[in-house]
Amino acid sequence: MSQPSTTDANPTASVLVIGNEILSGRTQDANINFLAQRLGALGITLREVRVIPDDHDFIVATITDLRARYDHLFTTGGIGPTHDDITSECVAQAMGVPWEIHPETFALLEAYFTRERFNAARQRMAMLPRGAVPIRNPVSLAPGYSIGNVHVMAGVPAIMRAMFDELAPGLRGGRPVVSCSWYAFDLFEGGLAAGFAAIARDYPALDLGSYPFHRPDGRHGVALVAKGLDRSALAGASDAIRALIVALGATPQEGEPPA
Amino acid sequence: MSQPSTTDANPTASVLVIGNEILSGRTQDANINFLAQRLGALGITLREVRVIPDDHDFIVATITDLRARYDHLFTTGGIGPTHDDITSECVAQAMGVPWEIHPETFALLEAYFTRERFNAARQRMAMLPRGAVPIRNPVSLAPGYSIGNVHVMAGVPAIMRAMFDELAPGLRGGRPVVSCSWYAFDLFEGGLAAGFAAIARDYPALDLGSYPFHRPDGRHGVALVAKGLDRSALAGASDAIRALIVALGATPQEGEPPA
Repeated sequence: MSQPSTTDANPTASVLVIGNEILSGRTQDANINFLAQRLGALGITLREVRVIPDDHDFIVATITDLRARYDHLFTTGGIGPTHDDITSECVAQAMGVPWEIHPETFALLEAYFTRERFNAARQRMAMLPRGAVPIRNPVSLAPGYSIGNVHVMAGVPAIMRAMFDELAPGLRGGRPVVSCSWYAFDLFEGGLAAGFAAIARDYPALDLGSYPFHRPDGRHGVALVAKGLDRSALAGASDAIRALIVALGATPQEGEPPA
Repeated sequence: MSQPSTTDANPTASVLVIGNEILSGRTQDANINFLAQRLGALGITLREVRVIPDDHDFIVATITDLRARYDHLFTTGGIGPTHDDITSECVAQAMGVPWEIHPETFALLEAYFTRERFNAARQRMAMLPRGAVPIRNPVSLAPGYSIGNVHVMAGVPAIMRAMFDELAPGLRGGRPVVSCSWYAFDLFEGGLAAGFAAIARDYPALDLGSYPFHRPDGRHGVALVAKGLDRSALAGASDAIRALIVALGATPQEGEPPA
């Protein structure tokens, strides 16, 4: 009963969130959802996310694993100036290259900070794996970088987003995923499962998913979503989902989630 | 430069989020942060989170991997009645046991639904891996379950939280992690990195992390956090962090993040 992957033709990606603060619950991650949406819009299929601690061996092993499995690996976190920012030296080790001063980045940071303020901690931010191509950071200057298929970004959401905006135009993408969403108030998943499974069988090129919702005002229902690369299959599945909701006695509502 | 794991004495855990809707960006995960906080409070060290699609082989392989690596594995998602809810048959395969009707759960659901409404889709929710111990679901009845060190919960946050509340008292926990947080307005990580690294070296039994913040009113600074199991080390590190902030000319503010 494996679900078919409907976007096999597109490049694949994984996201690696590096940071004790997510695993301790101190911080609510805000990067996964952003990257998921942006990668989908670029036609890059996000297949896996991992969140791991600021642990040298763990980071090296996970980068080595994920960069081999997927076309792109995007990392967030661990590239600042403090002792717990160890992502870059781990990326260098995983790629088998030296971790060394990147002269252009060093000059950029040296020109920005006064001599006194450009201390050893800040100079570490000018050390990149050999061969890395910097990703401009319009927020706080110290860059991210791409090396091979690994794209290394900051963990602070505003900086990560700015870096991704810099990076996105140069990424090899695919066909954008198209989707439809139908909302059926007062229905339950158990009541529509058989009909929805039949539609899924009729459109094997699409991914179909159902998501119960409960609004603050007490109204509930199920969202039925189809998505994939084939616009004509999507149109057919959308009609079929609409007809299923009508057949079950509810009023289908298309589009954004009900407030 | 590997960070020491300061909670080695405690049981470890991973969280596995199963769901295409997280990877497509349709849904913002709300379960990881909840579980991270609750596990920390129980003295269970969350070491890794993965988010993977509703894909049979992928789920089986990941459960097999994670349940061997950690003392506990908590899964969310994929236990509803629809065709894309395939977690339970995957757990059964990963554990090497049959996936079969669980008589007590079948009776519970049969008594709740009328005969007509207890259709094949809903009967699937009464199929558990052999040997599973149900986790009561006070929200929508269909249970989660534990089997060995794998704890299988719903993806809908309200239901997942209720299931975790049922599960938590029976989990083998450890010593709760204690932490302190100091906020230093107007400082930058690059300016305090050397002093903070020295404190980290003085307290190898603690994890020390720094987190820049930017308030909506434009004020910024850095949060300095120490955490671990040793209360007396924590008190010493807390004093040292406070003194560092003072030495750098800022006013330390303890406690919750500034609004």
